[in-house]
Amino acid sequence: MTAPIYNRVALIGLGLIASSMAHAMKAGGLAAEIVGYAKSAESRATALEIGFIDRAAATAAEAVEGADLVVLAVPVGAMGAIAAEIGPYLAPGATVTDVGSVKQAVIDAVRPHIPEGVHFIPGHPMAGTEYSGPRSGFATLFRNRWWLLTPLEGHDPVALARFRALVEGFGAKVDTMDAPHHDVVLAVVSHTPHLIAYTMVGVADDLARVTDSEVIQYSAAGFRDFTRIAASDPTMWRDVFLTNKDATLEILGRFTEELFALQRAIRLGDGDHLHAYFTRTRAIRRGIIEAGQDTSAPDFGRGQPPSGGRDG
Amino acid sequence: MTAPIYNRVALIGLGLIASSMAHAMKAGGLAAEIVGYAKSAESRATALEIGFIDRAAATAAEAVEGADLVVLAVPVGAMGAIAAEIGPYLAPGATVTDVGSVKQAVIDAVRPHIPEGVHFIPGHPMAGTEYSGPRSGFATLFRNRWWLLTPLEGHDPVALARFRALVEGFGAKVDTMDAPHHDVVLAVVSHTPHLIAYTMVGVADDLARVTDSEVIQYSAAGFRDFTRIAASDPTMWRDVFLTNKDATLEILGRFTEELFALQRAIRLGDGDHLHAYFTRTRAIRRGIIEAGQDTSAPDFGRGQPPSGGRDG
Repeated sequence: MTAPIYNRVALIGLGLIASSMAHAMKAGGLAAEIVGYAKSAESRATALEIGFIDRAAATAAEAVEGADLVVLAVPVGAMGAIAAEIGPYLAPGATVTDVGSVKQAVIDAVRPHIPEGVHFIPGHPMAGTEYSGPRSGFATLFRNRWWLLTPLEGHDPVALARFRALVEGFGAKVDTMDAPHHDVVLAVVSHTPHLIAYTMVGVADDLARVTDSEVIQYSAAGFRDFTRIAASDPTMWRDVFLTNKDATLEILGRFTEELFALQRAIRLGDGDHLHAYFTRTRAIRRGIIEAGQDTSAPDFGRGQPPSGGRDG
Repeated sequence: MTAPIYNRVALIGLGLIASSMAHAMKAGGLAAEIVGYAKSAESRATALEIGFIDRAAATAAEAVEGADLVVLAVPVGAMGAIAAEIGPYLAPGATVTDVGSVKQAVIDAVRPHIPEGVHFIPGHPMAGTEYSGPRSGFATLFRNRWWLLTPLEGHDPVALARFRALVEGFGAKVDTMDAPHHDVVLAVVSHTPHLIAYTMVGVADDLARVTDSEVIQYSAAGFRDFTRIAASDPTMWRDVFLTNKDATLEILGRFTEELFALQRAIRLGDGDHLHAYFTRTRAIRRGIIEAGQDTSAPDFGRGQPPSGGRDG
């Protein structure tokens, strides 16, 4: 096992992502010491009990002292306040990163509080399950997953390379891009689909004529996929939509245009329009299987990232 | 192994559902003889080659001669023409069933052609994968899946019980309801979700600013679930939307109302509205896991029905 990449890692927030990072760091010997902070005392105690942190701190400011890597793993809406609190206590030469699923809003909130000499590398691990909290983490969450980085202009390439090494040590694949582009891509592949799934589940819930038990009972029909998406953490997602507002609204607008066109085709009985549309979308599915981001085998490894061994 | 339930089963259409029924009948000794018809000569040859039919017929009329069970497994839009063709050749006392995912439209198209003394039991197996054609079938497709029956008024209870025994022999669970109710339930749990998934995938495809490769590359983010739904057979789905028009349009209308309400909350920055909505939908997800229609384990048995042994 090679030398640790970081001496002291401070995890601010101890939910699914932070705890999984910690498990992966421990498994790979990537950090010499891991300090954890969460607002909830119970989460701190759980993290110590499970053992994926070495020490718990009672405040975020205390956690970051002497840390060479600080991970902001709190809801996006809380990033600014946390950054303001820890700013004065960050060690010179430290790297601060985040794991929020929107980037521009996080940069706007955090950057003003990062002192000269401290590296800020905004990031976004594209991984997750429907669970939350310190008990939900596991070491392999990031294997074969994309971890997107949006380094700022004038960033230090050595600091970037060091952080990249950590993330690759988790088994993740790294891509860099600018923050606005990240936010549009995510609006398309994640944020708007989530909103749509939430809405469909909400509509099913409202219907008086179809009982809840039937919706649940027959939910293997396609609806089940929507409910899995709609079970994601409400706080995290509220913040995502509030902070990736423009890109989400734009994609939503496109979506409703398309939906109305299909609705019109249905009303008018235009079978050709429907058939052509559905045929086109099948091709995207094939592309995804080929890109290795999914498998047509029965085990999609749901909740676990696809990996060579399991998908065979 | 008990005696076969039917003497001669005629499969009209040899796609995923028909071929899976045939595999299941062979595995369980549920039918003494299986005759198959498909429009495509290649499908007939494939079915014979694989061996899930004993004999291929060159026409649907020929296939149903002397059959005590006839399964209409063609796209919903083709049901009427097929029924007109086979009507005069159905054996007295035979049972005719279908596997279409809409019921009222099938009943309207088929019923006029069913002679006196022949039993018509419309049905809908709620099972499927993203694949089509005679090579896609397998014996366990229906295990633990719901098979909905919408028997007509004045139906023969013995004929119904006999068909039910066959379906339960496949490992499926049976529920009966009236056709209009079936169609509304399906609009909620399947048809509208599918349309929405198709639309989201189509929107992603259209976007010039986000390259196809990024959409595909980062598609594990939630979008992947949509693409799996959107890879379903275009012909089948075109027919579903054309024939379950009213129920689908009603659910679509409700969906767009809800979506606009959420869109408005995003535009106005109403975090409380969003949080409350997302929290409510999580409960439905829990209900589904409890109802045994899904599992929180990594292996969701995607493409295979959930079964006691695999989900543990």
